[in-house]
Amino acid sequence: MESTCRPRLSPAIADLRRAVRAALPEAGLVLVGLSGGADSLALAAATAFEAPRAGLRAGAVIVDHGLQAGSAETAAAAARQATALGLDPVLIVPVSVTDADGDGPEAAARTARYGAFETVLESTGAVAVLLGHTLDDQAETVLLGLARGSGATSLQGMAAVSGPYRRPLLGIRRAQTRQACRDAELLPWSDPQNVDPRYARVRVRERVLPVLEDELGPGIAEALARTAETLREDADALDAMAVAILAEISEPAEAGVAISVAGLAANPAALRQRMIRLAAASGFGVSLERSHTLAVARLVTDWHGQNALDLPGVRVERQGGMLLFSAPRHTPNKGLFRSHGTS
Amino acid sequence: MESTCRPRLSPAIADLRRAVRAALPEAGLVLVGLSGGADSLALAAATAFEAPRAGLRAGAVIVDHGLQAGSAETAAAAARQATALGLDPVLIVPVSVTDADGDGPEAAARTARYGAFETVLESTGAVAVLLGHTLDDQAETVLLGLARGSGATSLQGMAAVSGPYRRPLLGIRRAQTRQACRDAELLPWSDPQNVDPRYARVRVRERVLPVLEDELGPGIAEALARTAETLREDADALDAMAVAILAEISEPAEAGVAISVAGLAANPAALRQRMIRLAAASGFGVSLERSHTLAVARLVTDWHGQNALDLPGVRVERQGGMLLFSAPRHTPNKGLFRSHGTS
Repeated sequence: MESTCRPRLSPAIADLRRAVRAALPEAGLVLVGLSGGADSLALAAATAFEAPRAGLRAGAVIVDHGLQAGSAETAAAAARQATALGLDPVLIVPVSVTDADGDGPEAAARTARYGAFETVLESTGAVAVLLGHTLDDQAETVLLGLARGSGATSLQGMAAVSGPYRRPLLGIRRAQTRQACRDAELLPWSDPQNVDPRYARVRVRERVLPVLEDELGPGIAEALARTAETLREDADALDAMAVAILAEISEPAEAGVAISVAGLAANPAALRQRMIRLAAASGFGVSLERSHTLAVARLVTDWHGQNALDLPGVRVERQGGMLLFSAPRHTPNKGLFRSHGTS
Repeated sequence: MESTCRPRLSPAIADLRRAVRAALPEAGLVLVGLSGGADSLALAAATAFEAPRAGLRAGAVIVDHGLQAGSAETAAAAARQATALGLDPVLIVPVSVTDADGDGPEAAARTARYGAFETVLESTGAVAVLLGHTLDDQAETVLLGLARGSGATSLQGMAAVSGPYRRPLLGIRRAQTRQACRDAELLPWSDPQNVDPRYARVRVRERVLPVLEDELGPGIAEALARTAETLREDADALDAMAVAILAEISEPAEAGVAISVAGLAANPAALRQRMIRLAAASGFGVSLERSHTLAVARLVTDWHGQNALDLPGVRVERQGGMLLFSAPRHTPNKGLFRSHGTS
């Protein structure tokens, strides 16, 4: 009521604009990845406001996944909203989602979506795609990663900046984006997939997070997002060190790569194991699971003349002062290493 | 039935003995921290079997917290079981639990318990106290840490070895300890506190973990324990580096400590922020919360002539090429930094 007499900027809109302002690049064209949902619609509105004031052009890209009846209409409606907000260009990119890798429908849709973004980045010369992921999305991502149990890698959530992709809203709650839409009289689209319990992310949102809040107190989503932020810093630092040290202590070998045992021994477990995983990944495209990484590490830290390790996709043996990584010669040895369903 | 004809070692007992064998020290007296519950009772049985075969003596210490009616009787019953298992010495230590720090009854009981362990370590000359924490306890600890949201520190769970304390069962499920007790015809005590929903740990066990298993699939406890293990490695590596680098780039200053801005700038965020927290903790006993740590880091990474930061318990300012940490001169400045309830 008060705002009718003295128009004031809604706090939600102000928060979103501030977040977008801090995340904009220096110059060029930015595209908002728009689904029409509250998160990306509020992002589009904030970007349409902030970009021109920062000397940038701002457009929108709407990916039509074609997975639901009426998806073309939903895309067209979102495009109309983007245009009404003043975004230009506004592009709709239809994609066909095929789960070729067998990773499930969510992963397949994601792959198709990012493929479309890459195409549009190239065709428009845009410098960035802004994505509407919120603090709540980040918290859900951390919990999904926790269920995989692969340490910092799976817990660090989504990056605020990753190549051309920027996520200005990682510090903003989903409820704030809904409020911002209401305050701006924008009508967001409600994606039925967002309440479909066949999706693990939906179950985390609707069932897991509420139980965590009930049992452990409020503030869980913020705590999860904070955790992701610090773990990402830790992993970034250790990953960079592992790459740098590995370059120093390894050399190409006859059939792969050789790493100095002394060099591996001189580093803490966190770096030693990262270097082992790196050597397997970069040389042989293999993502070692933890039990295998630890078995390789024991060739350094607990050496008592072990045999060569025939792991899935890579063979590792100690010869003199070096660990040799080479292509596998045999089938993995009988049952010594069973797959534990994680990597 | 089959085992009546051909006695075989139960798999649960075999697993526990193997875990204990791998965790025993080289020589001396080890004490099992015994509550009488299934976890520590199974640990006591496995230790009574393994220790003499490894040339060690093994005893037990039972802490009587005096918090429940009949606690002396429970302690005496556990002592009789320990003696029957062949453990010697078997010591009951009564403690009085007072929540002097206001950290809650669980923390107060823990403080009293570890105080008793310290006393007994000294009086008996024991080299280690073995604790019965299982993989399930570890998973619960990680979830409780997640709710605090302070990154690797709160997620790394309990250490397998920490000073004289060893936790041989961190890879063993709680159900296995119950099975081992049944197989050895040992009757464990059921602590009523283990089902009292006033305790956050009980709520995690009874309500949170089952929902996580239901919604995200089985194997969550193992995934959480694996996460703790890798995050502990990461944190150990980064903590040690931060201590070493801080010693190189800092010097005592008039009223505290001074750290080289160039030295802080040359290191990744994970190390820079650890060094800032270290300087505040070691110099002023202050545990900086993340928002404060980041504000100090911006004196390095985003310097535009900021004022001195008057944080709770420590003042930080940039002077020339140094960050000066000194005792606070004013009360914390007005509302710029509010406490967020975490540190």
